[in-house]
Amino acid sequence: MRKCYFDHVATNPLDSRVLDEMMPYFKEEFGNPLSMYELGSKAKEAIDNARGQVASLIGSKASEIVFTASGAEANNFALRGIALARQNEGKHLIVSRMEHHSILNAARFLEKSGFAVTYLPVDKHGFVDPDTVKKSITKDTTLISVTHASSEVGTIEPIKEIAAIAREKKIIFHTDAVATAGNIPINIKELGVDLLSMAGHQFYGPKGAGALYIREGLRIVPLIYGGIQENGRRAGTENVPAIVGMGRAAELAREEMGSRAEHVRRLRDKLINGISNVEKIHLTGHLQYRLPGHASFCVEFIEGEAMLLLLAAKGVYAASGSACSSKALKSSPVLLAMGIPSSLAQGSIVFSLGKDNSEEDTEYLLAEFPQVIKRLREISPYGKGWGIKGEGGECIVQK
Amino acid sequence: MRKCYFDHVATNPLDSRVLDEMMPYFKEEFGNPLSMYELGSKAKEAIDNARGQVASLIGSKASEIVFTASGAEANNFALRGIALARQNEGKHLIVSRMEHHSILNAARFLEKSGFAVTYLPVDKHGFVDPDTVKKSITKDTTLISVTHASSEVGTIEPIKEIAAIAREKKIIFHTDAVATAGNIPINIKELGVDLLSMAGHQFYGPKGAGALYIREGLRIVPLIYGGIQENGRRAGTENVPAIVGMGRAAELAREEMGSRAEHVRRLRDKLINGISNVEKIHLTGHLQYRLPGHASFCVEFIEGEAMLLLLAAKGVYAASGSACSSKALKSSPVLLAMGIPSSLAQGSIVFSLGKDNSEEDTEYLLAEFPQVIKRLREISPYGKGWGIKGEGGECIVQK
Repeated sequence: MRKCYFDHVATNPLDSRVLDEMMPYFKEEFGNPLSMYELGSKAKEAIDNARGQVASLIGSKASEIVFTASGAEANNFALRGIALARQNEGKHLIVSRMEHHSILNAARFLEKSGFAVTYLPVDKHGFVDPDTVKKSITKDTTLISVTHASSEVGTIEPIKEIAAIAREKKIIFHTDAVATAGNIPINIKELGVDLLSMAGHQFYGPKGAGALYIREGLRIVPLIYGGIQENGRRAGTENVPAIVGMGRAAELAREEMGSRAEHVRRLRDKLINGISNVEKIHLTGHLQYRLPGHASFCVEFIEGEAMLLLLAAKGVYAASGSACSSKALKSSPVLLAMGIPSSLAQGSIVFSLGKDNSEEDTEYLLAEFPQVIKRLREISPYGKGWGIKGEGGECIVQK
Repeated sequence: MRKCYFDHVATNPLDSRVLDEMMPYFKEEFGNPLSMYELGSKAKEAIDNARGQVASLIGSKASEIVFTASGAEANNFALRGIALARQNEGKHLIVSRMEHHSILNAARFLEKSGFAVTYLPVDKHGFVDPDTVKKSITKDTTLISVTHASSEVGTIEPIKEIAAIAREKKIIFHTDAVATAGNIPINIKELGVDLLSMAGHQFYGPKGAGALYIREGLRIVPLIYGGIQENGRRAGTENVPAIVGMGRAAELAREEMGSRAEHVRRLRDKLINGISNVEKIHLTGHLQYRLPGHASFCVEFIEGEAMLLLLAAKGVYAASGSACSSKALKSSPVLLAMGIPSSLAQGSIVFSLGKDNSEEDTEYLLAEFPQVIKRLREISPYGKGWGIKGEGGECIVQK
């Protein structure tokens, strides 16, 4: 049976060229980067090299990159680290409703710790309106965090505009770029952000390596205290092989980004066009301002989990809602924030493409997916009511 | 030139059997454990299996193990997570002066956040006196954290006695077992601890994987918020290969602990006996209650860094002070807490042995080390004063 991996938002396969680069650090080069002898200094050099590679990916200085173990850690570090560092200047934060759980739940933790948080509404495409950001700012606002792109609906946010508003008001601006870094061009100076989160396994690097860009001179409170690793900003023995892998993956992403994006964009458009022909299926997010490899839909009268299971039985791997909650079986807060009714949000499905997907993969999906839908609708109690007007037609992109 | 790695407290080489177990998860089994299809469920099973292996190492239930990215993260999670979860019951914590930076610096952070912290003194061998613990308890004490063993001087603390005091007073007890887990037998029920930190790379597992044992039913506030990974207690896409590696390393450690410990204990005793014959060298820690592979000294009239450099030139890799601060060039707070004068603490050196060290390695060191000391004393301005009474004679084990 054909196997089609269409779940690159969940994680990417590791590029074999990246693994090759990591291997010596699992074997002879096993030193602790803090050790004073050669074995240590070689590990230290490898990390410094990776730091430069990650910095190059986003146009920052190497010294502005702090390695973490995940995008989630980078997000928690940014939000809590800045909130605490600036708490004497104010205790109000602004985040959007499009954020990943690691931002939303860190924000909720800060609320319990005495901070006030504004959750920005979004429109039917999932866009945060810069004007809404402006109106939400109070004299106590110290930090704004808006995701660069949503991994659930692919929408790319107007970060540059929002960052400019923050800068004008002397408010620190963070963006979660876990879904974008390594996949679309990012230059932190052009974007004008103060902090930016990344995850290596989102661009064919290893799991266990993430990074936070922290603009030079910015004060931040550590999340993990301990030794002097990462210039005292993030303690714990460095995961040298994973960091080396993230560096090499960043380098490859920079070199191949154009061709990779063109490839997945073509496949994505084919999927969107093909799937949109099926009845009562709605594209979520925006047709144009979306991640190049991202095709997401809400399917009426069907539950996402049922689609995933039947697709998996055909060798097609996809997601419903966000990867970090797909087993939680709740309606996605992101889809609800976009005004999609809960019943329709239950039928969410996300196909996310990668550099190794082929034309044949998409053709296979386009042949199989309508059958899956048909079969599920036949057994669905809601499927009987075909005649009723589809809910939520206003809030999503229409065929 | 012979290469002798005597710095197992900094990090261990990865066991090739562990790497073999990890490899499939860098290749075909790259799925996200939260994904609902087979690729995801296989990753999930691999993590569950590793959880069982780590639990077996310390005699806990699998569900009581939360994976982290490092021992430092586990320590921060324990200290901050319990302090916050119990802050309505009291805001006083007790830690010892033997703790790793990740405990001490997390404690200092909590002090800045409105908690009171008592730092327990220790005796000349680095022992925490259970009576001192008892006397430090107030009605506001919610957490006591004492390291299982110090990686700087090898001293194994009377954890069972201290844990019993905590339990009697209904205070939560945590131990940092990063230096001991996988190296000496641990049973959490016998020890009577509520939380226990581990790091995979301290027992021939990979960097990037740590764990916190959390007794069933214990409330704890997460350090990293986000998705539903680790039962909602630690977010971030799981580092599947590293977790699998830590699991396998735990299994091997359990099987081979006896023979490994016997091997390194024999080499250690040889080193201690041989080095103690050199003039003006003092063993730090306790001769009997110490880690099996741990030989640590303070050398009069010489700086640790100079010894490290000359030893490294001879292919001998060792440490001075703790690995996480060896580049910080400050006197070790642990040695100072033991009453060792600052000038003598500067001359600290730690040889930590591993399963792959040989008899010949120790013989080589015993031949080379006295020459290194002789050479450094010849060029040391302090070396001239040989006649003066050695400082700190009272506070350390005498020859």
